[in-house]
Amino acid sequence: MRIGLDIMGGDFAPEATMMGAIAALKELPQDVKLVLFGPQDKIEEICQREGVDPKVFDIVNATEVIEMGDHPVKAFAAKQNSSITLGFGMLHKKMIDGFASAGSTGAMLVGVAATIKSIPGVIRPCIATEMPQFAEDKHTLLLDIGLNADVRPDVLCQFAQIGAIYIKQLYGVENPKVALLNIGAEESKGNLVAKEAYGLMKDNSNFNFVGNVEGHQLLGVCPADVVVTDGFTGNIVLKEAEGLYHIIKKSGHTNEFFEKFNYENLGGTPVLGVNGTVIIGHGVSNAKAIKAMVMQTKNVIEAQIWQKVAEKFQ
Amino acid sequence: MRIGLDIMGGDFAPEATMMGAIAALKELPQDVKLVLFGPQDKIEEICQREGVDPKVFDIVNATEVIEMGDHPVKAFAAKQNSSITLGFGMLHKKMIDGFASAGSTGAMLVGVAATIKSIPGVIRPCIATEMPQFAEDKHTLLLDIGLNADVRPDVLCQFAQIGAIYIKQLYGVENPKVALLNIGAEESKGNLVAKEAYGLMKDNSNFNFVGNVEGHQLLGVCPADVVVTDGFTGNIVLKEAEGLYHIIKKSGHTNEFFEKFNYENLGGTPVLGVNGTVIIGHGVSNAKAIKAMVMQTKNVIEAQIWQKVAEKFQ
Repeated sequence: MRIGLDIMGGDFAPEATMMGAIAALKELPQDVKLVLFGPQDKIEEICQREGVDPKVFDIVNATEVIEMGDHPVKAFAAKQNSSITLGFGMLHKKMIDGFASAGSTGAMLVGVAATIKSIPGVIRPCIATEMPQFAEDKHTLLLDIGLNADVRPDVLCQFAQIGAIYIKQLYGVENPKVALLNIGAEESKGNLVAKEAYGLMKDNSNFNFVGNVEGHQLLGVCPADVVVTDGFTGNIVLKEAEGLYHIIKKSGHTNEFFEKFNYENLGGTPVLGVNGTVIIGHGVSNAKAIKAMVMQTKNVIEAQIWQKVAEKFQ
Repeated sequence: MRIGLDIMGGDFAPEATMMGAIAALKELPQDVKLVLFGPQDKIEEICQREGVDPKVFDIVNATEVIEMGDHPVKAFAAKQNSSITLGFGMLHKKMIDGFASAGSTGAMLVGVAATIKSIPGVIRPCIATEMPQFAEDKHTLLLDIGLNADVRPDVLCQFAQIGAIYIKQLYGVENPKVALLNIGAEESKGNLVAKEAYGLMKDNSNFNFVGNVEGHQLLGVCPADVVVTDGFTGNIVLKEAEGLYHIIKKSGHTNEFFEKFNYENLGGTPVLGVNGTVIIGHGVSNAKAIKAMVMQTKNVIEAQIWQKVAEKFQ
């Protein structure tokens, strides 16, 4: 397996990304190769400083960077030697099995659109995150968390199917429970999109729909394995939880459960519904977060999620 | 001032409501009369048991109850002697200055529509709540939190105006800062409704628009005094915070700030944009919550919020 990592992605690159890559090395099995996209001299310099043989990595010398202020579409095309453009080029040619970056989200999405593209039959790709749960073996995936501010009901239905594949493939949950984020338990509740989506989901044989979940059910003990919503609501709900984590941390009250809110432990956000494994990290990622993102990329590649989605949507 | 209280409203009525009313008596000034809507014999029985002279209250003998399972429209019309129907009757005739109930939300809204109605010019009434803030003198009102799952951009604009009046009247904040709940800081961010609303809000002379706030900015240190959103997002965001309060409490980590999430301390939810003061309490209200709701009703009446909204929308 070959995991591509953008060494120039994120506010603290290349220092944090290199330290994250080196930390990941210690946990990755022998047959996993980390492919680093970044300036070769800088990469080798940090390796030397840290007493790591640069040869443990494959290095793709990327001499340009797509900055956060760049126009994503223009920069992706213009900066042919940027880490993101080179990364997607190799992902497209299947020279790497996945690509992870804490760089410009916009450029990452342009990269998807310009190279691997959406899976045929998938109306809209989306991004997803896990909402913290008490039980160690309980995972609840929330999607979309920001790509699609407005969604059609049939798109929510596809998110349900994609989310169920993700949870089944990654955690071995048979027939994952899928719910719709809503403002009441009854079918009649919600905005127009949610009401229509409920109708499409309840008799859908592609996944195991268990009804609506409300805001207070998302965290801790969610009755579902997959919760679908539009990217507007999903993004706000996710950021509210992140904001609360910071408040809890500030108050000195973190514990094992609240640490699950910490993005450093979460890794990044998978882009789902596209022809490849793509993970977008938090812009403020430190070495710990980069390492978590690399480990997550490995897990998502191993779980063959995009391939299973492609099979289902054939 | 005369505050109407539904003694039969909520899961623990009439015990919790009566104990709440008795507790409120100790803090209400002499010139405030509590008008209790409920079965006279039961009210007098609890008064006697608690050593309270029933004459301190005005009692309106309501012999019927609108149950949570009742059809709100039908029950409001059919049960003429119910506490909610009698309460709205007296509110409409201005025989009470406000009406508070922890009973059926549906019946309360039917009561509004059947009696006092929306303020002319207000497209849609809404409900609001304060999001917990660190500073004691900082108040951030979120609206709508559930009445309008789908909103038009011009309706969000009206929520902004109504929310600003609420904060100014209740807390004396001059020129309250109004923000739009969104998924990014820029004007171009958001779903179709939010983008359109931003355009309507940014040059609006009726309130002081300060731009977008994101999910993580809602709690603790919100940069705005008023945050507007659709009732779908608002309801989910509010319930998520409530859910987290329960998780924090369970973990034994509550403190002064987190206690602000506790509905018992919050009182109820004002219905805004209607011709009168109406407060809806949480169905699970205990005596402490009922007392808080009564005190809040007093404050909202004193602040003359609905009258100021009516003036502005003339």
